[in-house]
Amino acid sequence: MAKQRDDEPMTYAASGVDIDAGDRAAERIRHHLKRTYGPRVMGQEGAFAGMLRLDYNEKLFSRNYKDPVLVACTDGVGTKVKLAIRLGKHDTIGRDCVAMNVNDLIVQGAEPLLFLDYVGLHEVTPAFLERVVRGVADGCAEAGCALLGGETAEMPDVYAEDDYDLAGFAVGVVELSRAIKGTDRVAPGDVVLGLASSGIHANGFSLVRAIVDRAGLDLRRVYDGYAGDPVAGGRPLGEALLEPTRIYAKPIVSLLRSYSRKRPVVGMAHITGGGLPGNLNRALPEDCDAALDRSSWRVPDLFGFLQEHGRVETEEMFRVFNMGVGYTLIVRPHFAEGVADRLRRSGETVYELGEIVRGKGEVRL
Amino acid sequence: MAKQRDDEPMTYAASGVDIDAGDRAAERIRHHLKRTYGPRVMGQEGAFAGMLRLDYNEKLFSRNYKDPVLVACTDGVGTKVKLAIRLGKHDTIGRDCVAMNVNDLIVQGAEPLLFLDYVGLHEVTPAFLERVVRGVADGCAEAGCALLGGETAEMPDVYAEDDYDLAGFAVGVVELSRAIKGTDRVAPGDVVLGLASSGIHANGFSLVRAIVDRAGLDLRRVYDGYAGDPVAGGRPLGEALLEPTRIYAKPIVSLLRSYSRKRPVVGMAHITGGGLPGNLNRALPEDCDAALDRSSWRVPDLFGFLQEHGRVETEEMFRVFNMGVGYTLIVRPHFAEGVADRLRRSGETVYELGEIVRGKGEVRL
Repeated sequence: MAKQRDDEPMTYAASGVDIDAGDRAAERIRHHLKRTYGPRVMGQEGAFAGMLRLDYNEKLFSRNYKDPVLVACTDGVGTKVKLAIRLGKHDTIGRDCVAMNVNDLIVQGAEPLLFLDYVGLHEVTPAFLERVVRGVADGCAEAGCALLGGETAEMPDVYAEDDYDLAGFAVGVVELSRAIKGTDRVAPGDVVLGLASSGIHANGFSLVRAIVDRAGLDLRRVYDGYAGDPVAGGRPLGEALLEPTRIYAKPIVSLLRSYSRKRPVVGMAHITGGGLPGNLNRALPEDCDAALDRSSWRVPDLFGFLQEHGRVETEEMFRVFNMGVGYTLIVRPHFAEGVADRLRRSGETVYELGEIVRGKGEVRL
Repeated sequence: MAKQRDDEPMTYAASGVDIDAGDRAAERIRHHLKRTYGPRVMGQEGAFAGMLRLDYNEKLFSRNYKDPVLVACTDGVGTKVKLAIRLGKHDTIGRDCVAMNVNDLIVQGAEPLLFLDYVGLHEVTPAFLERVVRGVADGCAEAGCALLGGETAEMPDVYAEDDYDLAGFAVGVVELSRAIKGTDRVAPGDVVLGLASSGIHANGFSLVRAIVDRAGLDLRRVYDGYAGDPVAGGRPLGEALLEPTRIYAKPIVSLLRSYSRKRPVVGMAHITGGGLPGNLNRALPEDCDAALDRSSWRVPDLFGFLQEHGRVETEEMFRVFNMGVGYTLIVRPHFAEGVADRLRRSGETVYELGEIVRGKGEVRL
């Protein structure tokens, strides 16, 4: 950023905004956006907003909508960015951002359509921005949605040097009769399935960082304390913590499509801040509990490692972290095995966590 | 935020995140969201994402879509937040955020449907957050779109105390045959109409703040230098600068609907960072210029006041600020008078800025 001399007329560049750097960055990230585009995206130079054709009458897509419902949400990656900054590794945080959003969309039965990202930062560096957006595009490609655009806001007075924030917005669509809304289809006897997480995902990082700092942990060191962890084991601590959030969109969308008439999935939850007790409960009616068996899955060692070094109570761990389960489904008992098999064939690790019983809308662990 | 003692087990709250404050804030903002809801919004407790029914087969809405195109964009308010923070006035910055987004959507001919906001901040204060979200809801109500949800991210290590960032995300819909895409309908002889801005809007605030600081201007003082300004005149400088961005959604949507067959509007532009030369050009084909007559509208005095105190070159002013024109339309000559009349009846101040001539895709001022 150019320094302004007191005797010069003032310019926008001298007030701290480098428009050229922004343009160069836009150039570099354009091809990352394009690789997420399917035939629905209507590309155009200079547009003020992105456009995506729903295609109802074109039958380019095998199924058609009669009463489409748009599903939309926004989420950021929280202080996981601070870890990315500390490690100087910015190419996967965008995947977290996509995951945090599309994993919410699919809970309502929606198919992700489009995504937009917002990056607030101190100063635009084209190479840095490309790294972040590459991660966002990777996530979009994996979730099957178009990265329709984004905004980069250079705000040197809000963000400290090297600091940034990353937020995302996702839109999906679901046919009204297939939307998963409310909790009234959940009933005692239904089975609760859990899908393995890939690690900490993008919640609880204020606590993670406090533990790391207070216990004096070295982010570049490989610790034995989580050697048996299926994802983190054998990797440096920082890299293990930064492992991007698993994206459940394609397996879940494909599952719901395959049961287009029977609808055996009666509720779902994305396990984020609040953990299993604070998210699975959102899928429960007032008169049902989810009775989970803690021995039905193995909590990955990385969580135990953090718990030990932070001397965190076990209940607190379950209220902050996903503890190895990133997504849950509530399924009619007769279909539980079939649903689990399909998800395993899609590459998921599936646990039968427990079942729905009469109760008060709570998760019993 | 509770201080953590070294000998205590660690908790999430002690690491800097107050979940209860977040819940209280959510309670306070819920009714602001609800007042933006029409019959398309499917409200539900505990949902992971907002839902909006497009209603094609229900005919609740007078017109129907055959080949709907989703239009989406994201934008923030830039460093205008810093001015809001300095003045301790947070109830209109949300309107800016909505305006920056919906004014982009309508350029493609879209009707705004839904909005989501993202607030990143140091610490959640329910009263503060309510003020911000109230402004967002006001903007949504004025734009005719539903505030379907939002995210508040408490990040004490990214945002300094009292600092925050505000980004928004908007989705609209347009029937394919009525979408304004590309620039090929623009031709020599077309008339360029401009709609008056309400002031600085939400661009160029890094320069505004640099001018204020270098010239030692007092934000609480009423200056004679902009006494003749139709919006700013007679008001303290800070308040005049903070005047929210005008939302052009309803008049433009209504205009486009009223010409459902003739389509006399061949291009539009939302005048943001880059000013008239950097935005109206996006609506021009490669072989046309927009020849504007600077005497066709009066630049509001607030711009002259800033220019003088910052000793900014006139060309630079036009490249950073809207200079009194917040939105432009390119209209078939035969319809220019009728379009201008309709917009005036919707409450807009309309200027005939100039016309389209043969050229190189540039804006001549």
